[in-house]
Amino acid sequence: MSHEPQKSWELNCPVPLPVDGEHLTLAHGEGTRLTRKLIRDRIIPALGGGQLASMEDAARLSMPSKSLAMTTDSFVVSPLFFPGGDIGSLAVYGTVNDLAVSGARPLYLTLSFILEEGLPLALLERVLESISRAVEQTKVQIVAGDTKVVPRGAADGLFINTAGIGQLVEPVPPGPATLQEGDELIVSGPIGRHGIAVLCAREELALEPPPRSDSAPLARSAEVLRERLGTRLRAMRDATRGGVAAVLHEWAESCQATLRVHEAEIPVSPDVRGACELLGLDPLHVANEGTMVVAVAPGSTSDALEALRTTRAGKQASSLGKVVRRGIAPVTIVRALGTEQPLDDPRGAPLPRIC
Amino acid sequence: MSHEPQKSWELNCPVPLPVDGEHLTLAHGEGTRLTRKLIRDRIIPALGGGQLASMEDAARLSMPSKSLAMTTDSFVVSPLFFPGGDIGSLAVYGTVNDLAVSGARPLYLTLSFILEEGLPLALLERVLESISRAVEQTKVQIVAGDTKVVPRGAADGLFINTAGIGQLVEPVPPGPATLQEGDELIVSGPIGRHGIAVLCAREELALEPPPRSDSAPLARSAEVLRERLGTRLRAMRDATRGGVAAVLHEWAESCQATLRVHEAEIPVSPDVRGACELLGLDPLHVANEGTMVVAVAPGSTSDALEALRTTRAGKQASSLGKVVRRGIAPVTIVRALGTEQPLDDPRGAPLPRIC
Repeated sequence: MSHEPQKSWELNCPVPLPVDGEHLTLAHGEGTRLTRKLIRDRIIPALGGGQLASMEDAARLSMPSKSLAMTTDSFVVSPLFFPGGDIGSLAVYGTVNDLAVSGARPLYLTLSFILEEGLPLALLERVLESISRAVEQTKVQIVAGDTKVVPRGAADGLFINTAGIGQLVEPVPPGPATLQEGDELIVSGPIGRHGIAVLCAREELALEPPPRSDSAPLARSAEVLRERLGTRLRAMRDATRGGVAAVLHEWAESCQATLRVHEAEIPVSPDVRGACELLGLDPLHVANEGTMVVAVAPGSTSDALEALRTTRAGKQASSLGKVVRRGIAPVTIVRALGTEQPLDDPRGAPLPRIC
Repeated sequence: MSHEPQKSWELNCPVPLPVDGEHLTLAHGEGTRLTRKLIRDRIIPALGGGQLASMEDAARLSMPSKSLAMTTDSFVVSPLFFPGGDIGSLAVYGTVNDLAVSGARPLYLTLSFILEEGLPLALLERVLESISRAVEQTKVQIVAGDTKVVPRGAADGLFINTAGIGQLVEPVPPGPATLQEGDELIVSGPIGRHGIAVLCAREELALEPPPRSDSAPLARSAEVLRERLGTRLRAMRDATRGGVAAVLHEWAESCQATLRVHEAEIPVSPDVRGACELLGLDPLHVANEGTMVVAVAPGSTSDALEALRTTRAGKQASSLGKVVRRGIAPVTIVRALGTEQPLDDPRGAPLPRIC
């Protein structure tokens, strides 16, 4: 008796997948009766209806003001389910966070699926439930969607794209190009958790307990920072692919100063530190999905930390370093013993498909 | 000597792909130096910079009014290049058209790539050029983007998602739920061209000349209809997946009347008719990508046709039928000899991956 090898996207699925359950067929994606049935019977009810229920080509929306932010992200994470999250909530939080760190209040999202023929409908439903909970939690609305089905082997289970718009709230942080000598750097929580959680789940590394992703919405953290700091808030950025190091390098390139961080201040949880040592990774290069880097005006760190620590995602917020005159390298790290070294900007990280 | 089999996505690529040229690696998608280089050196210059050049997490936009439309679509067409178009222009027109038929003036688009490791960069550049031309032609701006790279075999070459927002222009057509007995139905051009063009390209059916897709923007056609008809314009819908028949069935379901079309009036080009006969397809079920169904108030067909025919995409616009009281079936077709029959709503169409 032969068994089909388990698909990577079935790994860690939190519900048992019925072997005789319904599976997606190409016909589910052809725009005819089955597509409408899939959307009407499964997708729309799971997401609570609203604008989606009209099934028009575009949603009609009314914005509170004419100033808005817009963003998009595709999600190809493997495996689809990992400790601390899954592709569904990740796709909602990812776009919500991009809007929030840009100084906007997230309002409306679109949701587009690329599905592989043969995907169990029970698995799709599980992802929809997760999306639905994340949407409720972040108080955004999914207003338009799309569903494509590609033949077996032409995609890996399930990809999601979300795009979103939000209302810009004044004062909008002026962004990394305005960073100046003396500005201070903060990180909103322990770093590297998402990348390590996904990597351990994918490689089936049996760490106990399994490291959990930090996947979480940052809208509330961004809001309290804006309220508390006003124009003293310079820039925020969620440290996704490439980790905190990638954000620091992008910012240093924008402002042409040096960003100096202190190794002793960087919050790293013991499990992430252990896994990174085992795998030869630097937590600064590992992806986060609910942790941001923040730049504030000189002397504002303690106010910022106090505000951040009132939020769920910011309980372990910590000082990270400061902006200094451009020196030996765009980004430097002061090691525990006090020596300052350039911090690497790797050409590519060894962690594919973490979001 | 063995050769790798040609990848389906290399089919019909209009530029020769250098065998020793650069190919995408997973590192191009990891958010570090190579990703920034790909985006900064290839993607942003190809798309003309603008908002994208800041490489922030979200674009900051100013809308002309607070009323807007929002939509999204993913594109997984195979092959990537086909007579009359390619995945790049298709991804722009598709989202522009969804906005236009909803009564909005298309303004801002997001653009997200899912790329397969090993894709020749020359091919990606060809797609970017096509996107760039389509963006210029439709006068929209790409304001935010995302690029993911998945391992070989986890995607089929190149998928694109676009999301878009546009300004709603009053009077906004009230939509299919408001269709009433006596309303008239129009189609903006010969039907079935996109699906047949893609199918012939994919199956390498050697029809001479090869059928060309109708892939085109519909924003101008929608605009002239709105200007000419005002509140006499009831609904517009581009007849993509599932073809004209799928639009008619969705509309009939919305308004609970019967939509009756006349076979003799339906414009079908000789090559599409020939290919459909060969393949056993009904052109009414075959996808379009630059052709829409329009519903207008009683007596407005000639005004609508006159307006449509002033536009490039509407030169061969034609009357299609009318809305009558709900009878034997939601959608009926009057055959050449005068008999009225139900028009099928297939469960699934035999044409995967046409958009």
